[in-house]
Amino acid sequence: MSGEAAFIDTLRALAHHPAARGLLDDTAVLQFGAETLVLTHDMMVEGRHFLPSQSQADVAWKLVATNLSDLAAKGAEPLGVLVGYMLAPDQADFAEGLSEVLEHYGVPLLGGDTVSGGAPQALGLTAIGRATHSPVPSRSGAKVGDVLWLTGQVGSAMLGFEALRDATGEDSTAYRRPMARLAEGEALAPLVTAMMDVSDGVLLDAWRLAEASQVSLAIDSRAVPIAVPETRRLDALRWGDDYELLFTLPADVEPPVPASRIGMVEPRGFVPLFLDGEPIANRHGLGWEH
Amino acid sequence: MSGEAAFIDTLRALAHHPAARGLLDDTAVLQFGAETLVLTHDMMVEGRHFLPSQSQADVAWKLVATNLSDLAAKGAEPLGVLVGYMLAPDQADFAEGLSEVLEHYGVPLLGGDTVSGGAPQALGLTAIGRATHSPVPSRSGAKVGDVLWLTGQVGSAMLGFEALRDATGEDSTAYRRPMARLAEGEALAPLVTAMMDVSDGVLLDAWRLAEASQVSLAIDSRAVPIAVPETRRLDALRWGDDYELLFTLPADVEPPVPASRIGMVEPRGFVPLFLDGEPIANRHGLGWEH
Repeated sequence: MSGEAAFIDTLRALAHHPAARGLLDDTAVLQFGAETLVLTHDMMVEGRHFLPSQSQADVAWKLVATNLSDLAAKGAEPLGVLVGYMLAPDQADFAEGLSEVLEHYGVPLLGGDTVSGGAPQALGLTAIGRATHSPVPSRSGAKVGDVLWLTGQVGSAMLGFEALRDATGEDSTAYRRPMARLAEGEALAPLVTAMMDVSDGVLLDAWRLAEASQVSLAIDSRAVPIAVPETRRLDALRWGDDYELLFTLPADVEPPVPASRIGMVEPRGFVPLFLDGEPIANRHGLGWEH
Repeated sequence: MSGEAAFIDTLRALAHHPAARGLLDDTAVLQFGAETLVLTHDMMVEGRHFLPSQSQADVAWKLVATNLSDLAAKGAEPLGVLVGYMLAPDQADFAEGLSEVLEHYGVPLLGGDTVSGGAPQALGLTAIGRATHSPVPSRSGAKVGDVLWLTGQVGSAMLGFEALRDATGEDSTAYRRPMARLAEGEALAPLVTAMMDVSDGVLLDAWRLAEASQVSLAIDSRAVPIAVPETRRLDALRWGDDYELLFTLPADVEPPVPASRIGMVEPRGFVPLFLDGEPIANRHGLGWEH
């Protein structure tokens, strides 16, 4: 068990509240009168979640988009964000990137905090949304016989990261400015049995979905659309930052948005994940653990 | 204008949304169905908001209490918190302190994020609450002729900080484990014309209230209850971290909670603040700017 997992378990045990389970799911669901709120909070740290050389405008974009992606996985409509910003010399770039991403998604900046600091820069963002469907999709509802689907393709962010890291001049937009699948999430919410966004890699996130649902997932690696040459297929399946939606539907339901059928939900076997028929016994190396 | 103020102004200008004004007020107010949500997000950075030697349990307490204090100033009832935690070796202490403060206030942990990092440790907390009174109190409603009030006394946190810094063995609880005036805030919300919590010092926060309300405040320094010897009265008025409530009431309204009458609201003069009749022309040195 990783240090983080142990910490979260400690929090859960200590907090004595069912809502603390939200920590395992990244996203909190809160009933509020007749409406349901969805809340998510992510932190980003320089050198870990972004390159020190990256523009603060891109950091702002990613900070917002990744949190909106959490809302997308819940089929939630964003109501606003609060930003926690550790001041950096190029803070004007941050403000501009923040403005761009908020305008792109039509989401207001509700508030936040700024602090002085120093390297490594740390930032936080809280996104708040309104659930458009009840019950709110979770990771834990996949049923045996369901089909596993994925929106879009994976590997674009990996290519973008490599272009940026190696300064090749190739397009790095997919890594720098990920897109949250908000419209897709809202369209899917009434239909899915389980849903999550792919932030840490298709395989690792599928593993998590399988664990949460207490099923096994059988993935056909060749069915996953990739944005990279065939020789790098497995890299693309293990790379995060693409923010596509991974979801399960009953076998007789077609998704209302473009998506690929990449696997099946099977009874819980001796491992949570099978890749092209091979059992995956250990989550390490499946994706990005942070 | 400080770097932070310039940054916030840039955010406001760029965000093109009235809600962005919340950044100046630390606390966002959001209509949601028939209810009004109050949201606040604060960051804390090691060496700046807490001493590196402080226990992570105290850091957790302060992180929660300071955000709940923001809700108290709005008369809001807390619904839950999301925590952003940069992992530290003594994370079990953090979990325990978090559990203690959440149990003390009866507030659930809704979710959050943990990240790896390094010194300086940075943490964030988002608190969400339900407004108990509409309109929600703000800093901007003080009216000429109102009386300025303060709950409790100031200077305790200063003494606690000094005890901790100098390892005198004196009681440092007030600095390490501040209390949020939630019950007082809720009782006051229907009556006040303006309210805020005192996080950065009575004088600096009174200056802010005066600026937001476009009035001048005349404070009688001897009317402010202090927890320190008379020789340190001015230090206590300039020291933050006490998290008392500063509020204005019409002259004929008595507060329903213990509080001291510390000044008057006057027409906007050539400065926002008068201390014992002396004009204060500059906010620098009035309190803690961070």
